[in-house]
Amino acid sequence: MGKEYNVAVAGATGAVGNQMVLCLEERVFPVKNLRLLASPRSDGKKIKFRGKELTVETLNEKSFEGIDIALFSAGGSVSKEFAPKAVQSGAVVVDNSSAFRMEPDVPLIVPEVNAHAIAGHKGIIANPNCSTIQMVVILKPLHDYAKIKRVVVSTYQAVSGTGLKAMDELMEQTRSLLSFKETQAKVYPHRIAFNVLPHIDVFLENGYTKEELKMVNETRKIMEDYSIGITATTVRVPVFFGHSESVNVEFFSAISPDKAREILSEAPGIRVVDDVGKFQYPLAIDAAGQDDTLVGRIRQDESVEHGLNMWIVADNIRKGAATNAVQIAEILIDKYI
Amino acid sequence: MGKEYNVAVAGATGAVGNQMVLCLEERVFPVKNLRLLASPRSDGKKIKFRGKELTVETLNEKSFEGIDIALFSAGGSVSKEFAPKAVQSGAVVVDNSSAFRMEPDVPLIVPEVNAHAIAGHKGIIANPNCSTIQMVVILKPLHDYAKIKRVVVSTYQAVSGTGLKAMDELMEQTRSLLSFKETQAKVYPHRIAFNVLPHIDVFLENGYTKEELKMVNETRKIMEDYSIGITATTVRVPVFFGHSESVNVEFFSAISPDKAREILSEAPGIRVVDDVGKFQYPLAIDAAGQDDTLVGRIRQDESVEHGLNMWIVADNIRKGAATNAVQIAEILIDKYI
Repeated sequence: MGKEYNVAVAGATGAVGNQMVLCLEERVFPVKNLRLLASPRSDGKKIKFRGKELTVETLNEKSFEGIDIALFSAGGSVSKEFAPKAVQSGAVVVDNSSAFRMEPDVPLIVPEVNAHAIAGHKGIIANPNCSTIQMVVILKPLHDYAKIKRVVVSTYQAVSGTGLKAMDELMEQTRSLLSFKETQAKVYPHRIAFNVLPHIDVFLENGYTKEELKMVNETRKIMEDYSIGITATTVRVPVFFGHSESVNVEFFSAISPDKAREILSEAPGIRVVDDVGKFQYPLAIDAAGQDDTLVGRIRQDESVEHGLNMWIVADNIRKGAATNAVQIAEILIDKYI
Repeated sequence: MGKEYNVAVAGATGAVGNQMVLCLEERVFPVKNLRLLASPRSDGKKIKFRGKELTVETLNEKSFEGIDIALFSAGGSVSKEFAPKAVQSGAVVVDNSSAFRMEPDVPLIVPEVNAHAIAGHKGIIANPNCSTIQMVVILKPLHDYAKIKRVVVSTYQAVSGTGLKAMDELMEQTRSLLSFKETQAKVYPHRIAFNVLPHIDVFLENGYTKEELKMVNETRKIMEDYSIGITATTVRVPVFFGHSESVNVEFFSAISPDKAREILSEAPGIRVVDDVGKFQYPLAIDAAGQDDTLVGRIRQDESVEHGLNMWIVADNIRKGAATNAVQIAEILIDKYI
C-alpha cells in the first residue's frame, strides 16, 4: 500500500472547495485524513467524503498542524494570511486564489503545460485563473509546433466562476423575469439573466479588468514565453457551468487546421470536438462535469499570415480550478513529497 | 403637406417585419397606405398601425401594384422570387434578406456609413446583416481617422435574430430547466438556455459559418475598402434582444482610446457608454428598444501597434434590421423618389 497524506481544503464550502473534495474522492487521491476548513459561518457544516460526513471546522492558525498538502480556495485575503502559516506548519500549499500567482518564486502550474516548474516551489504553488488554464492547455502544444506571436481572446464565462451566490442570482433573476417580476442585482452590478456583462473582476487604471490582465500575465508565465502578445476581453454570460472562449492565434510559422487538430488530439487533457457537418463543436453544457478541455471550430484566419481561430471550452470549476489543483497535488506526491 | 407614399412590408408577421411597422409609425414615415404581406399562414391576421388594425394579406405577384416602397423581411427565397416583381411593378425594394447583398449592382447600405451609395440603385437596396450593421457604424468614423488594417470580432448574439420561434425556444427551455424537466431543441441543434452556441447560420466548406463570412464580406462592401482584414467568430447566447460584440481593431495610424471616444461621440447614431469607474459599459438589456449603437470599454491593445479593443452593442431587430431599413427608405424619399 502506498503512502497516504493528510490533506486540508481551505474554503471547503465554496463552489471550488466543494469540488476539490469531490475531485480528491473521484481521482482516488491517497488521503489519510481530510480536514475541511472554512469561515466561522460554516462551522459545523457537514460535507460528504468517501461516504462519510466530515465536519467543517473554522480555519485558524492551528488548522494546518500535521497537514501535508493544503488546497486553498477561500479568496485572496485568506490565502495571504494563512498560506504562509500552512507552509510554516510543514504543508505544501496549492493556492487557487490570485494572491501569489505572479510572485517570481511561486510556480504557476497547469500540469499539461509546465509540470516541471513545480520543482522550484518554496511551499506555495499557485493554481492559475480558470480562463487562463483552459486556454494554455490548448495553446501550449500549438506553440511548441509553430510558435505563437499574438493571441486575441474573448471569453463567455459562467457565473459559477463568481461563486454559489452568483449562481443563485442567475437562478432568481431568471425566475423573476419568467414571472414578469422585477429583478434585483446584488452580486453583479447589472442584471445577468438574459444579458451579457463585459466586466469580470475589478477595473484597473488602463481600462482593462483584472481578469483580462490575468489572462495576459498568467499565460506568459505558464508558457514561459514573455514575447507572446496577448489581449483579452472577458465577459460574463448567463451560463451556470463552463467557460467558452473565442481564441484567435497568430503564429510565426505555418500551421493548418488539420495539423492543429492532429497535434491537439495527441496532447494530454484535450478532446477535439470539431465536426461542424454534424454540428459538433465544444459546448459549455457538454464540458460541465468533465475534466477535459474541449476545442473545436478550428479554422484558418485569412486576415493574417499563419492565423487560426478556435473555440475552447472547459468546466471552470473542475479543470479551471479544482481538478487542476488536485492534479498539482498528484504530481507533488508522485515526485516531490 | 409633403408627399405620402404607398408602402408594403413583406414578412410583416415576423420579428423584424413587425418592428418595421412599428418603426414606420415611430419615425412618422409619410405613409399613405400600408400593405402588410405574409405567407398564407398569416392571412387575415391583424397588426396595429397608427391606432388602426390592418389586415395581413397573402403575398403574391400582384401585391406590389401601386406600391412605392417595399420593405422585405420574409427570408431569402421570398426576396429572390418577389423583390424583382416588386421592382417591375414600380416599387423600390429595401431587402433585409441576404439574397442580394453581395450583388455588384445592389447597394448595401448603412445610412451613417455609405448613404451616398443609394444613388446607384436599380430598384433593390440591401439591408446588411445585423451584426455587420452595428460594427460598421462604429468602425467607419475610426477608419476615416486612422485607417483600419485588421479586425478580429467575436459576437454574443440574441436569439431574436433567429426569429420568434427561437425566442419561444429560449423561454420554454429556460422554464423547463427551472422546473428540473427535460428540454427540447428544435430551432437550434443544441440547447440554448444557459448555454452558448458557436454556430449561427449554415457551415461552409472552409469551416466558417455564413454569418461569419457575412461580417467579413459585407463590412468590406459597406466600408468600400476591400483591403481591410476581418475575421469573425459568431456566437449565439441566451439573450432575447441585443447583439454584443467584442471587437479588436488594428489601425495603420496611431489612435488613442480618448481620441476614439471623441470621434465616436461626434459621429451619428452612436452613444458612447464608457465609464468603467461607474460600471457603465454597453449592455444588451440597455440597447434593447433603442436605435443607437452603443460602444464602450475602449482601451489600448498593447499586443500590437495601433490596436484598440472595444465592446459594441445594438438592438439587432431595430438598428440591426428594421430601423436601418426604414432609415434607408427615409433617404430614398428625401433624395431619390
